[in-house]
Amino acid sequence: MRVVIVGGGFGGLEVAKHLRKANVEVILVDKRNHHLFQPLLYQVATAGLAATDIAAPIRNVLRRCENCTVLLGEVDGIDVAKKNVHTTAGDVLGYDFLVLAAGATNRYFGHDEWEASAPGLKSLEEALAIRRRVLLAFENAERVATEGGAADAYLTFVIVGGGATGVELAGALSEIASRTMTRNFRHFDPKKARVVLIEGGDRLVSAFAPDLSAHVLEDLRHLGVDVRLKTLAASIDEHGVVLKNGERIESRTVLWAAGVGGVSLAESLGVALDRAGRVPVRPDLTVRDLEDRSVFVIGDLAALEQDGEMLPGVAPVAIQMGRHVAENIEHEIAGEAPKAFRYHDKGSMATIGRSRAIAQIGRVHITGFVAWLVWLFVHVMALVGFRNRVAVLLEWAYAYLTYQRSARIILRQ
Amino acid sequence: MRVVIVGGGFGGLEVAKHLRKANVEVILVDKRNHHLFQPLLYQVATAGLAATDIAAPIRNVLRRCENCTVLLGEVDGIDVAKKNVHTTAGDVLGYDFLVLAAGATNRYFGHDEWEASAPGLKSLEEALAIRRRVLLAFENAERVATEGGAADAYLTFVIVGGGATGVELAGALSEIASRTMTRNFRHFDPKKARVVLIEGGDRLVSAFAPDLSAHVLEDLRHLGVDVRLKTLAASIDEHGVVLKNGERIESRTVLWAAGVGGVSLAESLGVALDRAGRVPVRPDLTVRDLEDRSVFVIGDLAALEQDGEMLPGVAPVAIQMGRHVAENIEHEIAGEAPKAFRYHDKGSMATIGRSRAIAQIGRVHITGFVAWLVWLFVHVMALVGFRNRVAVLLEWAYAYLTYQRSARIILRQ
Repeated sequence: MRVVIVGGGFGGLEVAKHLRKANVEVILVDKRNHHLFQPLLYQVATAGLAATDIAAPIRNVLRRCENCTVLLGEVDGIDVAKKNVHTTAGDVLGYDFLVLAAGATNRYFGHDEWEASAPGLKSLEEALAIRRRVLLAFENAERVATEGGAADAYLTFVIVGGGATGVELAGALSEIASRTMTRNFRHFDPKKARVVLIEGGDRLVSAFAPDLSAHVLEDLRHLGVDVRLKTLAASIDEHGVVLKNGERIESRTVLWAAGVGGVSLAESLGVALDRAGRVPVRPDLTVRDLEDRSVFVIGDLAALEQDGEMLPGVAPVAIQMGRHVAENIEHEIAGEAPKAFRYHDKGSMATIGRSRAIAQIGRVHITGFVAWLVWLFVHVMALVGFRNRVAVLLEWAYAYLTYQRSARIILRQ
Repeated sequence: MRVVIVGGGFGGLEVAKHLRKANVEVILVDKRNHHLFQPLLYQVATAGLAATDIAAPIRNVLRRCENCTVLLGEVDGIDVAKKNVHTTAGDVLGYDFLVLAAGATNRYFGHDEWEASAPGLKSLEEALAIRRRVLLAFENAERVATEGGAADAYLTFVIVGGGATGVELAGALSEIASRTMTRNFRHFDPKKARVVLIEGGDRLVSAFAPDLSAHVLEDLRHLGVDVRLKTLAASIDEHGVVLKNGERIESRTVLWAAGVGGVSLAESLGVALDRAGRVPVRPDLTVRDLEDRSVFVIGDLAALEQDGEMLPGVAPVAIQMGRHVAENIEHEIAGEAPKAFRYHDKGSMATIGRSRAIAQIGRVHITGFVAWLVWLFVHVMALVGFRNRVAVLLEWAYAYLTYQRSARIILRQ
């Protein structure tokens, strides 16, 4: 029996690990060689962590899963009838069970032309591209100011989208301008840099309770971030953003944190997807609209309702789904009936910056320094690999003491 | 009075730092935003260190030099008559004194077509490209072996050039194959990977004494490296290397460590350069063939003999030259005569890998574990920035204990 897993994120890794002792051959295919700890990706984008701090080679993570072969390759087709997947390199891999754990990508709501001017944040390459843009903006500001020109557009940063990622980016950018860049420039004051966060809804981080949203708003305004609620972008180009109300914000650095959706691979299943490009699944995590029950979809790519609400695209959902699918595959092999998945929400959290965070654990809402310590502890412990945990902890201790960011390096494309 | 420094390497930084209290305006221009600690670049290429561990933002290093403006830009022309430099962005910077500290780049001895198949190691981008190639070779070997094909060419690594960089790369690649990759692959044994080091001369690391060369040769052979002395490449392409003796080595990963030379900017001085593209300088470090004594050249870009031998392109030479030029500029401003430069050689060292190194300090030659400890201490202390020192020390301690390499991450181009 062969299980093919597409994707080495939180969900895919969990499936492989839980099948370690099962009597199956496992092949995990990923288009990248590394597992990525996405919750800290914004810190790579804002020069706080190195790319290698939050990534681990998939094959090394799974080195003790002796029944698992890890292949670097991009799956671009699924043949449900013949039970195989195709890769862009022309490989064809047959399967008895297929687990699609290929995740999400940035979505621009029909405005794909915005992508060039407003990059999103889903991969290390994108994080490094954002880091390059942010650091180049300051470099260009010094160059223009040295010649006596106006550097305002270089010193205006616009973030589109007020979810957790948008809030984390806004907080980090404001810290970079006000603390990290101190004494680094001769012809302008980096404290004058302006961070604008625009959000279409009437509150930030809407996945959290309203009192926590209010807290985040207050924290960001305290940091000097210009937060615009109920505000939508009408157009985005290399000169900045035009809002729906007609206002133009001149900015050379616009970042996209307003939407993600399932990867395009989902289309090759040949079933109807939801609006965000996700695959509707049954409670046992098989594809709802496929008769064949050998294809599972988990993590950000799966669309599943629980108690009337869609499960969110976060790591704990993917991890629990991964474990569940491994168990269901073992059930099926043993001739037992698969079980229905149920997500156990242990809480969620987001950080706004230094000593500022929110955490919602059931009915308990925590804010401020304590929430930040909880956030810090949970994220460090969740990182894959002892080395990464220690490295990130040390980077943060150093940053906390010095206000410096260790990864202020511009790499050329 | 304005001093323009081109290049933020060891030499350029030293000039700016030493002019901190001088009554001059300093502008340092570099095409990158970071100072790079080149002696450890091979460790980035072999996944031992993150790019950010050995680089520091130039403007942050010089934040206390209040008379110094740091500009990101690439100087592509020098007008000695008008006393200004041009950048690719169209900026024109006038100077009273110009210090060229723009360093060296890879040279292929008239075989520029080899560059695509055999990348060299002078910048972070090049180091990351080499890391990508090395890691992809192992990934491709697993993919080919899974399908039952022959992976030999993917598992053969050829390094051209047996100087310090070539030796360090060979030692690190052999360690990756024999220790780091353990249990990572299912369809081939990474220990079977072959590392070939080819050197045109009759001994390795010819800048050192013959007994140390012999020691390096023995160490590398002990590690399983196939060292070929008096061997030259006749051609290099994507399939491998053909040697002058007609032998063909099939390899998908050929690395160039056989030669560097001055950057092409030197040509715009309009004077005759030496064979390696370096600028002949007078003992006071001004350009030998320019009447005008306001242009200094230092570091890898300068050609200067001392006691009948050319000064080598190493960090201590650049640092001492930088300090000397700063002093000579101060002398000139004070109406005093410039002084002749003299290099004080404190010794040189190279490492072959874990617990193996050589050091030559005057007449004292050290090898083995003690030399490795000295190498380690000197390199950590020479890194710019407290954070980088601690981070590198911890990475090395971790690697020493676990044989792991923390930066095994493939980033797409």
